Formats: sequence, structure tokens, C-alpha cells
Amino acid sequence: MGSIDDAALAGALDHETRVQAHDHTALKLWLRLLTCTNLIEGSVRRKLRSEFESTLPRFDLLAQLERHPQGLKMSELSQRLMVTGGNVTGLADQLESEGWITREPVADDRRAIRLKLSPTGRRRFAEMAAGHERWVISLFEALSRDEQQQLLRLLGKLKPGLLAGVQRGGDARPAERRRS
Amino acid sequence: MGSIDDAALAGALDHETRVQAHDHTALKLWLRLLTCTNLIEGSVRRKLRSEFESTLPRFDLLAQLERHPQGLKMSELSQRLMVTGGNVTGLADQLESEGWITREPVADDRRAIRLKLSPTGRRRFAEMAAGHERWVISLFEALSRDEQQQLLRLLGKLKPGLLAGVQRGGDARPAERRRS
Repeated sequence: MGSIDDAALAGALDHETRVQAHDHTALKLWLRLLTCTNLIEGSVRRKLRSEFESTLPRFDLLAQLERHPQGLKMSELSQRLMVTGGNVTGLADQLESEGWITREPVADDRRAIRLKLSPTGRRRFAEMAAGHERWVISLFEALSRDEQQQLLRLLGKLKPGLLAGVQRGGDARPAERRRS
Repeated sequence: MGSIDDAALAGALDHETRVQAHDHTALKLWLRLLTCTNLIEGSVRRKLRSEFESTLPRFDLLAQLERHPQGLKMSELSQRLMVTGGNVTGLADQLESEGWITREPVADDRRAIRLKLSPTGRRRFAEMAAGHERWVISLFEALSRDEQQQLLRLLGKLKPGLLAGVQRGGDARPAERRRS
């Protein structure tokens, strides 16, 4: 895209520049939600790159394995990482060659492979996760603790209907995106 | 990705399945925000496809032109659509061949081309935009009007700092994603 000046960039990132006076509250809300999400995601992506030379798909894959010490099958990881569009096989190859993860055959399924964090991977991921949490905390500092709880509550009221909609819709890729 | 059952899908879409009890509020908040955004975006994408055989990059490009009746240069559109990762040239070729938009030379810049909605394009986009607004309104129906205003206010308090962060950071692709 080449370099553009910051004001133009901010405009480009701010979906609300699309909103007109007569637009419905829900539409303003959606574009503001999208803008905030994109800005936070972009910030996290830049931090992962600058501080850990890493990417969101790598972080997401490692985060899943960190949550599942017993390991996850490729197929399970693919499902869990679907949203981020990460190429599990390619990522797993990289991460294994870099010593982050190990592969094991699955006893009850000879074609399946289970991925686990290596001890080193677990230790290195802990640093990344701590950084990630610090960045996210600082990104939300504009909101008081009470306001963060309010926002959490409002989004918590919104989410169930959205999940139900997906389950009715049944599209397996409602939010697929390239993240790298 | 093949087809997976709805529960697995919901789990995959719900980034909060990653959150553990000790995680900070801001982290829960970020994952909930990301989940809601992905679910809404996915729903809008499916509706655009099923009701208008269209895509988000097409919708976003047309929405920009609808906001700028005097037309936009390719370069301006590229900047504005950066967030959605749309390939402006490719999209513009399609949309022109389908009669949605017209190209005009730019008086003061002989290498530049300005894109405008055609009268037909404007009429057809109005239907899409009306559909889009209906869908978004229904996606937010779980929240009362007051709650929508609260959410709008809270995100409005969050956004300026995030935009300022991008302007400081200066990465021109903070939220680039493939959308098609």
C-alpha cells in the first residue's frame, strides 16, 4: 500500500468515517466495534512482531496448546484456529523445527498426530502471554475498572444470540481472516 | 476445513474458551470484543453472499463511493479500503464490468482515475445498504436502546487512544485482513 500519512491512516482505520447522520445506532455501534477490534488486533500484531518476532496465528496456536497440556490433535487445532485462518500444518512444522512443540502419534488413531508444547515452548510462551496481557491491559486503560466491567457485561449480553445465529447458519467460516 | 458440529464451531468461534480464571478483565474483554466482532462480521458476510451474491470488500468499496458522490481516486480508495484488504483494482474492474461504477480521468492528474457509482450502482447499493442496516439492527437486538447507547459511549471512550496509538506506531497495516 506504500506509506500514507497518519491522518489518512486514521481515517482509513476509522470505519465510522462511513457513518452518516441518519444511520441507525446499531450501525454506528457495529462500525465502532469493528474499528476498535481492528485497532486492538493491529496493535497486538505489531507488538508480537516487534517484541517476539511472532505472529497472531502462531500466538493463537501456542495459546491453544498451552490451554491443553495433554496436547491437541491437528484436527482439533484446525477447528479451534479456524477463526484466525492459521494454516495449522505449516505453522506446526515451523514451531516444531524451532523447538516450541512436539508431535506424538495418537494411540487410538494411527493416522492422527497430537501436538504438545515442549517444556521450552511452554516457558517461552509464558513470556509472550505475559507481554500480550500487558499490551491488552494498556490498550483498555482509557476505561476504568467499572467501565471495563460494564463493557464486558454488555458484550456478554450480545454474544449468546450471535453464537446461536452461527449455529443456525452453520457456515463454518463466519470470521475467517488471514492473520500473518 | 470440512464440516464440524455446531458445538465445536461455537467453541472455535468463541475466543473466551481461551480465557482462564486468573486472566485479567482487559484480556476477557478483548477476547469477548474479538468474538462478537468476528461473529457479526461473519453474519454480515453470509448475508451479503446469500441475499446479494456480494462480498464485504465489494460492499465496503461501494459504501465509500456512496459517501463520495464526487468520486474517489484509486489511491484514495486504496487508503480507505486498506483495513479490509480489498484489491481495489481488481474489484473496480469487476464492478465496472457489472455496471456498478464508472471511471473518469482526473483533470489535474493525467495518470489518475476517479471512480464513481453509476446511477444504477447507486440504486442497487441503496438496497444492499438497507439490507446491511437491517441485519446489523437485528444482530444488536439483544441490547436495549439504552444499552446500545452505553456500548457506543464506552467504545467511544476507548477508540481515541487506540487511533492515537496507530498514529504513533505508524504501521500502515494494523488491521489488514483478507475479506472475500
